[in-house]
This record gives sequence, structure tokens and C-alpha cells, in this order.
Amino acid sequence: MSDKGKRREGQENAVFVGRRPTMNYVMAVMMVLNKGVECTVKARGKAISHAVDICEILKNRFLKGVEYKDISITTEVLTGEEGRQNNVSSMEIVLSPPE
Amino acid sequence: MSDKGKRREGQENAVFVGRRPTMNYVMAVMMVLNKGVECTVKARGKAISHAVDICEILKNRFLKGVEYKDISITTEVLTGEEGRQNNVSSMEIVLSPPE
Repeated sequence: MSDKGKRREGQENAVFVGRRPTMNYVMAVMMVLNKGVECTVKARGKAISHAVDICEILKNRFLKGVEYKDISITTEVLTGEEGRQNNVSSMEIVLSPPE
Repeated sequence: MSDKGKRREGQENAVFVGRRPTMNYVMAVMMVLNKGVECTVKARGKAISHAVDICEILKNRFLKGVEYKDISITTEVLTGEEGRQNNVSSMEIVLSPPE
């Protein structure tokens, strides 16, 4: 995925869900899980539904045995272009690889 | 809320999130939690992001002390009008009332 440059250290095993096609993200998550490590799927705002779809498709169709280790939701404060602060819901889904 | 007729038994403490304004659902959830019982917020498909927003707004602005007891995601199979089967992601968020 071409947004690699944006990633911070310690987030190599995280996938940030945005507006790309669903299967791009399914593949990205699968690549992480196939290394035998946990993968954190992160999304904000409207992309949260998309993230849930991605995890369910992966779990039901591509990698049987994947489990949800943790699902958490929180609010992030983003500062807009005009300096205004916006609250945006965000979600993190931690997937554990099949045994 | 006027969709009361649709509710099944045992779901009096559940709120189904759809396309109505956010605050309608926040109020509905608050009414359940104010009885001192748990409330389950349910949503499908695109409404999942909406449900997360509702829970976060309630937790951060209206009822401090509310906790997420459980968050689960799954896939439901819905049969469409033409008999076609569609997979739809669904989410359930169980909120526990403030102590």
C-alpha cells in the first residue's frame, strides 16, 4: 500500500482503513496475520463500518480461525484547517492470527 | 420512539440504530440506562459508524461513568426482496449504567 510513508514506528502491524476498495485492506490485514502476529485495524468516522466489513470478510471467507482479541472505541480530537476542533469517533479492532 | 411495535420480547433494553437523528438515539439509550440496567445498542451496515458516534457522545457528554461492557461484531444473512441473500455486518455495544 502506498501510504507506507505515513506510518509511525510501532505501527507496522496496523492497517488504517480509508476509502480504498475493501479487498485492498483485506489483503493488507491478511499479510500481517500471515506473519503470525496480531494486526490492529484502525478507522475513524464513516470508515468504521468499512473496517467492520473488512474484518468480517477476512474472518469468514479468507482466514478461518482468526479471532477478535479486542475491540475498542474512543473519540479523537482533530484540529481542522481553520483551527477548529472536531470530535471524531475512532475504532480499533485487534485480530489475532489463526493458531 | 415509534418503532416500538417492531420490538421482540427480551429486547426492551436494546436500541436499534438507523437513520434518525443522532440525538433521538442518545436520548433512547439514556432512558434505558437511567433505569439502572444495561443497554444494548445494535446496528447494521453503514449505521455501525452512527452507533459508535451515539455511544461516544452519550459517554463523553451526557452520562459520565457509562462503561462499555462488551463490543461484538458479526455477520447477519438477510434475505432480500428477490430472495437473494445478502451478508451484512452487524455490531452490538453493551453499555453498563453509571454506578
